[in-house]
Formats: sequence, structure tokens, C-alpha cells
Amino acid sequence: MRDPHEVSPGQAACSLRFDSVRRRSLALAAPLSDEDCGAQSMADASPVKWHLAHTTWFFETFILETLEQDFKPFHPAFRFLFNSYYNGIGERHPRAQRGLLTRPSMAEVRAWRFDVDARIKRLLERRADDPQLCSLIELGLQHEQQHQELLLTDVQHLLSHNAMNPAYRDDAPALAAASPMALIAFQGGVSSMGFEGDTFSFDNELPRHRVFVEPFSLADRLVSNGEFAAFIDAGGYRDPALWLAEGWDVVTANKWQQPLYWRRDEAGQWHEFTLHGLQRLDPNKPVTSISLYEADAYANWRGMRLPTEAEWEHAATAAGGERLRELFGHCWQWTSSSYAPYPGYAAAPGALGEYNGKFMLNQYVLRGSSAATPAGHSRLSYRNFFPAGARWQMSGIRLAR
Amino acid sequence: MRDPHEVSPGQAACSLRFDSVRRRSLALAAPLSDEDCGAQSMADASPVKWHLAHTTWFFETFILETLEQDFKPFHPAFRFLFNSYYNGIGERHPRAQRGLLTRPSMAEVRAWRFDVDARIKRLLERRADDPQLCSLIELGLQHEQQHQELLLTDVQHLLSHNAMNPAYRDDAPALAAASPMALIAFQGGVSSMGFEGDTFSFDNELPRHRVFVEPFSLADRLVSNGEFAAFIDAGGYRDPALWLAEGWDVVTANKWQQPLYWRRDEAGQWHEFTLHGLQRLDPNKPVTSISLYEADAYANWRGMRLPTEAEWEHAATAAGGERLRELFGHCWQWTSSSYAPYPGYAAAPGALGEYNGKFMLNQYVLRGSSAATPAGHSRLSYRNFFPAGARWQMSGIRLAR
Amino acid sequence: MRDPHEVSPGQAACSLRFDSVRRRSLALAAPLSDEDCGAQSMADASPVKWHLAHTTWFFETFILETLEQDFKPFHPAFRFLFNSYYNGIGERHPRAQRGLLTRPSMAEVRAWRFDVDARIKRLLERRADDPQLCSLIELGLQHEQQHQELLLTDVQHLLSHNAMNPAYRDDAPALAAASPMALIAFQGGVSSMGFEGDTFSFDNELPRHRVFVEPFSLADRLVSNGEFAAFIDAGGYRDPALWLAEGWDVVTANKWQQPLYWRRDEAGQWHEFTLHGLQRLDPNKPVTSISLYEADAYANWRGMRLPTEAEWEHAATAAGGERLRELFGHCWQWTSSSYAPYPGYAAAPGALGEYNGKFMLNQYVLRGSSAATPAGHSRLSYRNFFPAGARWQMSGIRLAR
Amino acid sequence: MRDPHEVSPGQAACSLRFDSVRRRSLALAAPLSDEDCGAQSMADASPVKWHLAHTTWFFETFILETLEQDFKPFHPAFRFLFNSYYNGIGERHPRAQRGLLTRPSMAEVRAWRFDVDARIKRLLERRADDPQLCSLIELGLQHEQQHQELLLTDVQHLLSHNAMNPAYRDDAPALAAASPMALIAFQGGVSSMGFEGDTFSFDNELPRHRVFVEPFSLADRLVSNGEFAAFIDAGGYRDPALWLAEGWDVVTANKWQQPLYWRRDEAGQWHEFTLHGLQRLDPNKPVTSISLYEADAYANWRGMRLPTEAEWEHAATAAGGERLRELFGHCWQWTSSSYAPYPGYAAAPGALGEYNGKFMLNQYVLRGSSAATPAGHSRLSYRNFFPAGARWQMSGIRLAR
Repeated sequence: MRDPHEVSPGQAACSLRFDSVRRRSLALAAPLSDEDCGAQSMADASPVKWHLAHTTWFFETFILETLEQDFKPFHPAFRFLFNSYYNGIGERHPRAQRGLLTRPSMAEVRAWRFDVDARIKRLLERRADDPQLCSLIELGLQHEQQHQELLLTDVQHLLSHNAMNPAYRDDAPALAAASPMALIAFQGGVSSMGFEGDTFSFDNELPRHRVFVEPFSLADRLVSNGEFAAFIDAGGYRDPALWLAEGWDVVTANKWQQPLYWRRDEAGQWHEFTLHGLQRLDPNKPVTSISLYEADAYANWRGMRLPTEAEWEHAATAAGGERLRELFGHCWQWTSSSYAPYPGYAAAPGALGEYNGKFMLNQYVLRGSSAATPAGHSRLSYRNFFPAGARWQMSGIRLAR
Repeated sequence: MRDPHEVSPGQAACSLRFDSVRRRSLALAAPLSDEDCGAQSMADASPVKWHLAHTTWFFETFILETLEQDFKPFHPAFRFLFNSYYNGIGERHPRAQRGLLTRPSMAEVRAWRFDVDARIKRLLERRADDPQLCSLIELGLQHEQQHQELLLTDVQHLLSHNAMNPAYRDDAPALAAASPMALIAFQGGVSSMGFEGDTFSFDNELPRHRVFVEPFSLADRLVSNGEFAAFIDAGGYRDPALWLAEGWDVVTANKWQQPLYWRRDEAGQWHEFTLHGLQRLDPNKPVTSISLYEADAYANWRGMRLPTEAEWEHAATAAGGERLRELFGHCWQWTSSSYAPYPGYAAAPGALGEYNGKFMLNQYVLRGSSAATPAGHSRLSYRNFFPAGARWQMSGIRLAR
Repeated sequence: MRDPHEVSPGQAACSLRFDSVRRRSLALAAPLSDEDCGAQSMADASPVKWHLAHTTWFFETFILETLEQDFKPFHPAFRFLFNSYYNGIGERHPRAQRGLLTRPSMAEVRAWRFDVDARIKRLLERRADDPQLCSLIELGLQHEQQHQELLLTDVQHLLSHNAMNPAYRDDAPALAAASPMALIAFQGGVSSMGFEGDTFSFDNELPRHRVFVEPFSLADRLVSNGEFAAFIDAGGYRDPALWLAEGWDVVTANKWQQPLYWRRDEAGQWHEFTLHGLQRLDPNKPVTSISLYEADAYANWRGMRLPTEAEWEHAATAAGGERLRELFGHCWQWTSSSYAPYPGYAAAPGALGEYNGKFMLNQYVLRGSSAATPAGHSRLSYRNFFPAGARWQMSGIRLAR
Repeated sequence: MRDPHEVSPGQAACSLRFDSVRRRSLALAAPLSDEDCGAQSMADASPVKWHLAHTTWFFETFILETLEQDFKPFHPAFRFLFNSYYNGIGERHPRAQRGLLTRPSMAEVRAWRFDVDARIKRLLERRADDPQLCSLIELGLQHEQQHQELLLTDVQHLLSHNAMNPAYRDDAPALAAASPMALIAFQGGVSSMGFEGDTFSFDNELPRHRVFVEPFSLADRLVSNGEFAAFIDAGGYRDPALWLAEGWDVVTANKWQQPLYWRRDEAGQWHEFTLHGLQRLDPNKPVTSISLYEADAYANWRGMRLPTEAEWEHAATAAGGERLRELFGHCWQWTSSSYAPYPGYAAAPGALGEYNGKFMLNQYVLRGSSAATPAGHSRLSYRNFFPAGARWQMSGIRLAR
């Protein structure tokens, strides 16, 4: 008989992974001052400190509170302060006021992280025979990896509001090489989509189910900055015939004339504000930080369209990285599919059921992953989603026909 | 050889139908005063006079201007005043200010209608051998029928703002009989959807294409007022767990506690403001004038869901009116499908291409038809669409599982 | 002893005046259609029908309801629908939705007017010995005269939103002659201001009290359109140094570049939308329909300032129409004085006390009267008041130093 | 002959005062973390770091830039980042985004302060014979003292948004003793107001001029918390008859039911959020952090009114601290006077002229000073001013009749 306190192989892996993911969050905050970590640049973005605290709240609330003997929260107010959107947990601090939480300090949040980490590790030792625990921890880590990506895009958004153009990273970005774009044809037919396997997936990738895909073609790489600049030069932002009606309203109301982070200097040269600071625009890199409106207008201008998420997954499964380049690690790819439950989808019971289902309206699916996505957090079946007007994510265009 | 001026059978039918549809618009306005016809109750609604003018503008702009010899507009300013959303035609009067157009008067708009009607009739005689003309006229008539329905829902919305609860119609509404609800099971599989045939359809119903439908069940009738009242009594409007996140934000921000036109008197009895004035709520009639948010929350409360539009069309085609009651003529049925182009969809070139495609974002499809839909304007493949928060249409719930 | 039913001379005059003022309101509406009379162009403006109804409501509520035996309102709902801002009377129809009141119809409102008129006349006969009654009626008539002026400015605002530039009046406006502007010096000192006499005044003109006025000069005529056009040509709307901070915010937020009703044609020629329709700008007429912001910026540009209301009244009393031209009947003259109670001011008890006092904040006083002011409704002590940003009144500039 | 480099007695005092005021600003920030110093709780408030930087900007821009040889700004971007509202100096960072300026860091701002301080001191030595320089420095110090007060009220506002109720100061607040209120009568007459003397005043206190004051009475102390609580208990926040129309709109729109920082616990006991954290309400202390709307409504409820600023200054001059208690050092006292230029007021030329004049609209004068006002920054003629709805200042009520 196995000693219940002996650490199982699965748990050893879980423990190692826990350390690694949790440590990475702090590493992402390392180049920033406490002041940087406290500011919130818009209601949709959160302060770095809030990301560090909220991901800790998740472990304390959904794991320690349920499984720890004699559970006592690190600080009772944190339950309220760092709840994001779980109505089932109770009242929340107003989302748009996260930047006002100068207390607890970064030091206190770090202390909270270390405390929760230690308690999770003790729990792992005590419940060595509990397969559920590792599943829950894995959910918490996947959740934390999502926030690691948001942390980076939120930092970029914050720093972009500073006229001094501060850089988050000091190293110079690598240059990309030019490459022609080709369309790859797919026959379609009845196809299966959704997550398959026994590793982790989010509930919104399930259940795996059948769809019918009509024949289509998909571009073998993403649209580049240079190609998008040509759209601007051709008056793309001034021609309503190219735009969805709602997109055109947004363009005119906000006077959009270029992607969020593009800036033209007095000589007419394009630059882009990045995590490396303000950089001369690299024409060969994929265009990013654009809304679905802009992606759709660009595709119209090219006489093409955006793929559906079924097409994207079908093609990526069939052709993979061999013929379809830049699927992962460059930027998320807008699809024309609204974010909706798969047939047979069921949200989990209780507060964790609020993770995904209640957001399935007026948002659109992005597929692939971006340069900000943590290693190992990408999947063919992964469904990212944002409103059509969101621009501060690393989001780009893969054309279809 | 056929005399080119001889009226063809197709054209005779077209001419008769033209008279009939155009006449019906005026008949719908007949119970209203000129003052009633001029007011606009919100930006989403239009004055009756505007509907009468805009549908006339459509014929003048898209038919007479192209085909009439020595074309001269009835009034040059009307081209600007009564354009709804066609950027291709030029500038427009601001949508939210349609209620300020006290000039032209109702009498002038009626005169314009008669003038355009006479010119269309002359054109039909002159171009007796032009099959295109009847197609264009049919598009104009279908467009006018859509506005006939909007005219009624807009009037209801306008009159509902008057504390005196004025009635549009004087007759008493018929009572409905109670009837149990049953779920009908469908096997699904590869199914074809979209318009089929050689009669009229809108371009958004095309092309007919294949979809895969997983097995599902659909309710054989709509959710009734009495059933929806039970949801209210059970605290449905106060439980965030039932609602989409965006829906819950809207409910709390606007303090929604019941469907748009429901009012509870001091004795706790429900009434409903209708085109017949304020009426005691009929518990057996389908609940109507609700948003997608409310439809979805209700379905969640029942442990069910809304159908996709593919499921709705599949079921309606297979089971028709024999087993599925209240498909047409009661109220539009919200689906969970966002309004998106069918695979292979292509908008028409020119300004007419703005009819549908540019609205395919952040709107949801309703299927069936309502009590306000003109006779003959319903189809199995018809796709109505509104934003999830729209409540002033005759929109209700058919449950699925 | 006097027969109590014998009409006194005061009452005979009161009765004649009642007929005359009430008739004039209907005469002002005569050039308009029922549609024109129903529309509301912004929350600050009211439909003509509403003015006709509200002035009638005033007589029914504040006179008939108190003094009539067996009082019964003409229609119980009208008490709610046509209350403007009297909290003491109960709930009100929302101000911004007055344009939705297509019922009651203009015909019904006219019938209400005739009914109330007849009842007031009967009351006058029955209470021939009641001096209070004539005072109350006079208050109602002065109130109605205020609404006659608003009726005209509201109609101008409504018609200005119509791209066809409809005219309220068909006659051609008279041209003005050029005339030099001179500054007239006043010594000031302890001066009395406020209404004096035993005829009618509003309570905000009381009590008469002493103020100290330092020496000042006042322009002998109003600023002309031509002079104001020079300010525009000199870049007046683009120089923040000339503007109050709040004014500059409004100018930039709303992109103001000229007075409300001025329009420049393609040849660069100024026109003005007036009650006579669109007219070529008369350079010799006083500039009008400007905000306090614009008046103040113009005065700064000229190196002068606006007068205080104490200076205006002091000068008008001392110099009258002999040396100060255009005091009355052209346009209201913005002063730099905020609308505040005179020392010792006391609002009347009850709902009538809401007439003036509660508006004494963040509004500025205008003195004189305009071309839209009814004959006999002007006084040296009259205090008109509007927020600094109001532009749709006939408001202009008299300079001071 | 005096050595031009010898420090004059005036300059020695100026130099000492410069050190003292500048040092106090840093001392006020000492209890706060860098995170606390960076956050902005609303557009009207500013981060502590911004106050520290902007007051330094003032010295660099208005003194060093003009008088220093070979002037070079400490950092060119700071000129843009820390300009508050001076259009004459050029573009500005958006006011509502001051909380996003995580760079420069607090450390850099401190370094800037030390650098500018040293340069000002050198300038004082070099221009020992320049009487203008000390005047300019004094203006900068008075400006900094104004920001010291704002710094404290802005910190209070920020911390009040934190559910943990953090305290800025740890010491316990002193309790106040009960004391009856008496009205003191003044005869009025022609009176002089405005600054008199040869020490410092702001330009808005000038020129001294004559006003006529009718007889009036003024309360000898401020309204207390206990007295204001009685107003709440009597339904003061629910009775529109007590309120200015605009105040009532604000009360209903924002659901105001008590002063900004008052909170009632579950037992019904009042507490107040202060710089000492959340404290049990002291009934004998002056009520504070209320708007002019609330001050006016309270006075109405008591059958009294607020004083004009002429009355306040007349009484304070005549009766001083002997008979009028709590004139200074408790809380600012709302007057009914709108903030307007004194007769003969002239703004300074250039950008410094934007200090006061352009704000003289839709703001109301407060007299006296508060517990947050720096020692020595109070004067009988001092004119503080805020919009009627401002609540986050230490503002209270002195009654008049």
C-alpha cells in the first residue's frame, strides 16, 4: 500500500509546474517599479499588482478555502478587493477603480503570494492521493498564464500613454524577413473540432463535435505591417464601403487612422510603440494591435475575408506548421466567428462556472497565440475572445477566401 | 413577336402587388394623426412619416433615378432627408433627429408617394420586356414590408411613452387558450440551410449551404406570458447566475424588472401595453418584447437554452407547422446565433450592397415572424436580426435542449 | 354699497388683457402645422403645443383649482403632463420627452384653452370684489408672455434643424443702418436697483435695495454682426487666451466656430438662419444667438468687458433711451452677473415659490429685451437669466469698460 | 554702496521661506508610499507626485526659464507633463490621465525638486538686488501652499476609495466641545473690500473697492456635525423644496443621502472617513466635505441663508476672531457669491494671467480657511472658489440672515 504522504509522480510534476508558473509572474513584474505596477490605464486593463493579487486570490478562494483545514484568509478584505467578476463569491471592488488600490502595497501582495504558495505546497503534500487537487491547481495555473499575457498587454497600454515612450524591455527587437503570401486550399467536409486528449483544456473548447466546412482557402502567413500600411495609404480608413457599419461608426467617432500603436513622425515615417519602446515599424512583421473592425476592412479591401474558427482549426489540424506559418507565437488571429458555446457545452456548477459561459455574447474568437502568450499555453483548439473593438491585444490578420 | 408594350403576366402581377403593398403602408398610418406620424420616440425608432417617405425614397433612388428618362427627383432635398444608411448615396440627415422633420408635411409625403407610384407604373408599361425591373420593384416592396412591421413596433413604442396609454387599434385582442409545451427531438446530421427556390429572398439567406447539426430537441410552442411571470416571481431578474455578463450589466444599469411593456398595477396584477392600449396580461399568449438577454436568462432558469438558427431552420423544415406550433405570426424567436454571412455570401455591388452585409456584427438572428409581419412576408429561411438588447420588437422565446 | 357682481374698472382691464394675451399665443402658433407644433428639438426647448398647454395648466392649477367651486380638471392627466418643474404639484412628464406627447392633439389643447379661458372669465365675474384674483391672473399672463418668447426661439431652433431651411414668417426682414459706437461714462456711487412702483414685477426684481457702483462706461449700442464677423476673421474662436476656461472647453468640445445660426456659403458669404428663413447676414444688425462665453471672449478681444447688472440698470435708469440705444426690442444683453437673490429676497410660500428662487445658481443675468419679447413685457428692472452656454435665445452684447 | 552679491534682509527671509515651504511639501508626502503618490482618484484630483512635480514646474517655467543664464530644463518632457492649465505654455498631458504617469518616478521627481531648489537658491544669490525675483518666488510659494492643501484633500479622496479605510495619519483626532450658536448683527453700509497692505495677495483679491452692504446677521460659529445630522434625520435629503433646482438634480442622480465621507454602520451610528482613517463622527465638530448645494439646503431648512462674500469680509473685518469663532483653520465657508472679478480687476499679461481670471464663471467663493490650509496662508480677503457640486474639499457652513 502506498504511503498517502508519499508524493506521486503526477504531484511532483504539478508541484514543479506550480513553482515555475508562479515564479514567472513575479519575473514579468521585475522590470517595473511599484508605481508602474499600481496604475490602470483604462477600465479594460488592470494594474500589474492586481494581476499578481487576483491570480493569488484564485488559488486561495477556489482551492485553499475548500480544502485547507482551519482555513483563514491571508487578509479578509482581499477576497473583496481581488475578485474579478465572480458574482457567486459576493461583492467586488469596482473594475474601473483598480488603479486606486494603493493599499495593499506591492510588498504586501508579494507576501500574500509567498504565503499562498507555501500553503498550496503543503496541501499538495498532505493530499498526495487527491487527483482532483492537481486538476484544480492546473486550472489556477492556466488562469495565471492567461493573466501573464494580459499583464504584458496592459503594461504596453499603460506605458503608451506616457509622452516619454518608456520601454518595458531594453533589448532590441529582432527584424523579420520578407516572405510572399500564398493561399492554401482545403476541401472541407464533415470535420471534428474542439479539444481532444487527456491533458488540460478550458471548458469552452469542449465538447468535441462535428461541423460541416465548405471548401475554402487560407493564407499561409499573417498580414504584414507593410501590407497594412499600403491599406492606409490607399485611404482604407476613409472609405465606408470597406467597413462593417459598427466599425465605421467607431472609426469616425474616435478618428482612427492607423493601428493603436502606430505613430507617424514628421517625416512621414511609421513607428510603433512596443514593449521595447518606440521602434521604427518593421514592414515584414505581422501587423498587430488592431480591432476586428480593422481586420475585416483590410480583408475586404483585399477582396478576401476572415476565416471562421472552424476553418482555422480544420486547416491548422490538417496542414499544421508545415504549410501554415505563424500559427502560434506572433499574434492572435481574428476570426469571423462570434464566441458561442459548442453544442452540448455545459458550464461547471458554482462560481467556477462563471469562468467562460457568461461571456459568450458580442465577442469574437481569436485563434493561435501571440508573442506574449506563455510557452506551453497554446493549443489548436484554444479559443481566445475579445469584443470587436478591442485593440490593445496582440491581434492580427490571417486572410481566407 | 410580342409587342414590347404589351404587359406580360409577370408584370401584371408585379403591378397589382405594387399597388397592394404601397396602399397597405398608407392604411397602417390611417388611424394616426399627423402629429402621431411625426414623432420619434428613440434613435432606434423612426416616425411613421419617415417610414412612408424612406420607402418611397428607395423606389425613387434605386429604380427611377436609374431607369427613368429625364429623371428629376420630386424634391432634391428628400434624397438627403430620407436616406437611412446608404453611404454610397451621400450624406444623410442624423438618425436621432428624424422627429424634427416637421417639413415636409404628411400631406407632402403622401403627394410624393402618389407621384412615385404613378412614375413606377408608367415605367412598368414602358419597359414591359425588362425582367430586371420587376426584380428591383420586388426588392423595394419587400423592403417596404419590413418597414411596415417597424412602423407598427415604432408606433407601439411611441404611444407607450404617453401616460394616457393611447390605443392604436380600438378592437379588443383575442384571448389565447392554454396548451402544454412538449419537446420534439431531432436527429440532426448534415443538413442544408438557406433559401431554395426561384421566388424572392434577401441576399442574406444565400447561398444555400451545408451545416452539421448535432441531435437536439425543440419546444413545440413559444414560452407564454404566464410562464415568464413565474420566472419574475422566482426572482429571475435578481439572480446574476442566470444571465450573460453583458445582460446582467444592462439589467442592473437600467433596473429592468420585467418585459418592456409589462406594468404591474397597485393590486399586483400584470398588464401589458399593446397596440390595443393597456390590456390585462393574457397568461396564455407568447411572451414578447423581450431582449435576447431575457430570453437567454429564462432558458437558463428552465435548464434549457435557445436554439441556433441552423437548428431552428432544420426543425422547421422537417416538422413544419404540424408539430411545431407558433412558428410564424406570433412573435420572432431569438436564436443564439450571431448574424453572420453564409459561406460564399457576396454583397451586391454598389449602394444596394449595403442592404445587409455591413450589419453582420454584434447582432443576433431571430427566426419565424410576428403578429406585425405582413402577410406573405414570412419564410423558413428568413433571417431577422437585432442587437441583443433590443426590446421593442415583437420578440419571444422558443426553448431548445 | 357696491354690487359684488358689478365689474370693477380694474377687473374690466384685467379681463381685456386676459383675452388679448391668451389670443396672442394662438396667433403665434397660427403659421405652424400641427406637426410643427408637436416637435421638440432639444431638452431645453419645448414643443409649441406644450407651451400652449403649460400656460393653460398654470391658470387651471394655480387659479381655478383654488378658487373655482366644484373644481374639476379638464382632463386629470394634463396636470401631470404639463407641469414644468413644480415639485410641489407632484410628478411630471420627463422634460426631454415632451415631443412624444402626440396626444392630446393640438385640437384638444385648443379646446382646453377655450374651456379654461371661459372659466377664468366666469370667475372674474363672480369674484368682482377680489383684488387677489386679478393679481394672480396677471402673474399667469406675465408667465404666458415669457412662454410666448420661448415659443418663438424654440420654433427657430426646431426649424434650423431642417436642411430645407423653412421660414416661420414670409415677410422680408428690415435692413439696419450703420452707426458708430460710443462709450458713455457714468460716475456711479450708491445707487438703488430693483423694481419700484405698484404695477407688476416678478419677485426676483425685489426688494429694491442699494448697491455701490464704481465709475464705469457703457456702449451706447449693441455689438453688430459686422463687428462680430471681424472677431471671427481675426481667429477669435481659435485663441484660448480670449476665453473663460469653461468656455474654451465648450468651444473645443463642440467645435464652435461662429454664432449658432450663422452659416457660411461656399463663396464665403455669411448667412443667418432666422424666423424669416435663411437670410444674408445684415452687418449692421446686433449680433444675436450667442452664449455668454462668446460675448465675454468678444469683449476681451476688444479690450473691454461685459457690464454687471447693477451697472446696466444704473445706466439705463440715468441715461435711458436717449443716450443708450437698443436697450429694448433687439436682443437680450448678457451681463457678467450671476443670477442671485437680491438682499432680503423671499420666495413666495407653496408651489408658486418655485417660480424663480430655486434657479439662482450657475445662471447669468441678461438685461433689456429682444425682438421676440411681447410688447409691454420689458422693464428696466427685468432680470432674464440663462446658463452661460445657452445660445438659442436672442442674446447679444453691450460692451462696458 | 551695497555689494550686489550681498544678500539683502528681504532676500534672506525669502530664501528661508523658500526652504521651509518646499520642505513641507515633501514632508506631507512622507507618510505615503510611492504607489500612494502615483494614483489619481478622479479627474478633479491629482496624484501627490503630480503636485510635487507641478509646483516645481512652476518655478522652472516662470522663474528659471526667464532669469537663469543658459537655461536648460531638467527634462524637456516635464514641461509638457506637468503643465496644469496654462494654454500660453503649450500642450498639456490630459488632466484625467495624471495617474498614468508612472514615469518619471517619485525618485526622479524628488531629484528634480532638489535641482530646481538649488538653482533658485543660486539665482537668489546672483540677483541679490532684484526685488522682482522675491515677488515671483513668493507667488510660486503661495501657489505651492495651495497645492499642499489640495494634496491633503486629494489623498483623503484617494484613500476613501479603499475598502480597508487606510489612515494617512496615525494620531487620534482631538474631540471638540459643544457650544451654542449665536447670530451677530451688522449694520452694513458702504464698506471696502479686497486686499489692503503691502504683503502678498493673489490678484483676485484686488483692487480694493467699495460695496454697499445691507444690514445682516452672521452666525458666530460653523454648523456642527450634530446639527447637520438632525437635517438628515428630518428628511433633508428627500425634500425638493429645500434645494436649488440644480442641486436637487444632482442629489437624485447621484443618490446623495449624506456628506461625502459620512458612513452609517449597521447599528445606525455615523462615522466619518478622515485623514485619521474611519472615525466615529464627532457631533461638535464643524460639518465638512459638503457641496454648496447641501450648504444652501441646510440653511433653507434652518430658515436662514448663506452669507455673501461681501458680508463675510465685512463681518470678519469688523468683528474678527473675538466674536466670530472658527473663521480660520476649521473649514472653508461657502458663500452665495459667484466667483467674479472685482471692479477694475485686470489679469496679469502672459501665461501667468491665466492663474485666476479665466476661472471666474460657474464657481462659488469660499472664505476663511481649513484645517488643511498651511499656516500663514489665510487672509481676511482670501478668495477660494469651487464649483457648487465640489465635495472633496474641507468645506462647511456659516449661517447668515
